Amino acid sequence: MARWDPGTEDRLRRAALELYAEHGYDNVTITQIAERAGITRRTYFRYFPDKREVLFAGADQLPPVIIDAVLASGEDAALAVALDAARHVGGLLVARAEQTAERRAVIESSPELQERERTKSAAITAALAEGLVRRGIEAGEARLVARLAAVALQEAFERWIDTGEDFASCLDAVVASIREALYSPER
Amino acid sequence: MARWDPGTEDRLRRAALELYAEHGYDNVTITQIAERAGITRRTYFRYFPDKREVLFAGADQLPPVIIDAVLASGEDAALAVALDAARHVGGLLVARAEQTAERRAVIESSPELQERERTKSAAITAALAEGLVRRGIEAGEARLVARLAAVALQEAFERWIDTGEDFASCLDAVVASIREALYSPER
Repeated sequence: MARWDPGTEDRLRRAALELYAEHGYDNVTITQIAERAGITRRTYFRYFPDKREVLFAGADQLPPVIIDAVLASGEDAALAVALDAARHVGGLLVARAEQTAERRAVIESSPELQERERTKSAAITAALAEGLVRRGIEAGEARLVARLAAVALQEAFERWIDTGEDFASCLDAVVASIREALYSPER
Repeated sequence: MARWDPGTEDRLRRAALELYAEHGYDNVTITQIAERAGITRRTYFRYFPDKREVLFAGADQLPPVIIDAVLASGEDAALAVALDAARHVGGLLVARAEQTAERRAVIESSPELQERERTKSAAITAALAEGLVRRGIEAGEARLVARLAAVALQEAFERWIDTGEDFASCLDAVVASIREALYSPER
């Protein structure tokens, strides 16, 4: 058996999500996940350090991808650059996403998972800000713009889960809603 | 000695923050905090369950205050209502805030504290959304508007720490910056 195998990782992710949805996150053990995926508990730990991270596979690879996307954008204005990067990263996320509605429900069921999800969001926001600063945007503006783009990315992702529309359209619709919220009526 | 005393709570908060700033959050014990505040370790636990919560005193009282502020707003548009609540709550926060720059530096030094701070922010966002829903705003719009108002509140609070300007002016300036980011140039 290979030391690391993407097929096994995928099976583990699916098995974990199924079990969490069936029995509740707190009630599932690593042994059960490993069993359902047809591997040993010991092999599980080659893939994930605990029962939480199996739901966040690949999250650590996001920040460098986001920084690159910010640096590669052909846009000029800070928010346009950040939204460009959000569009790119969102496209990658949805391309490999599976059972996202189930995953969201499991995360919403557990304060510990919500906390981890927030850490992931904060890392995304920080990467957007970091990329903008590297493009010469002033740090305070970069942070504000990164936070706005992160809200848009998150909302677009949720819209994508709910509607299944093309991700770029979801993001455009969210940005349009944000503009509408800020401008109607005068305030 | 009284069972619970606001003066003691304040002393504990100050002692903890001083010690964290001096020695680093991870290196300070509850015994040291209690000692500096002139109480016993045992008395400490009447006030806070651990060494983290002393930095988040009163955080649990924020959500109901926010919901009330949303319900009390005389504005009509969802974002205007949420910003009204943010202005009200921000005013309360800054009125009782002490050593905020030191507190921010301590929080930025520790992943555990950042996590707790994000939990606090998420509770603020959820309370804003909840209040808006109770006013009859559709849930999806309420969530988006709550997230935007939460970004504005957070940015305004940071601006207030950095500049010491009046909180309402900080919030207005942040909202103006958000509008500018969304509208210049065309995208």
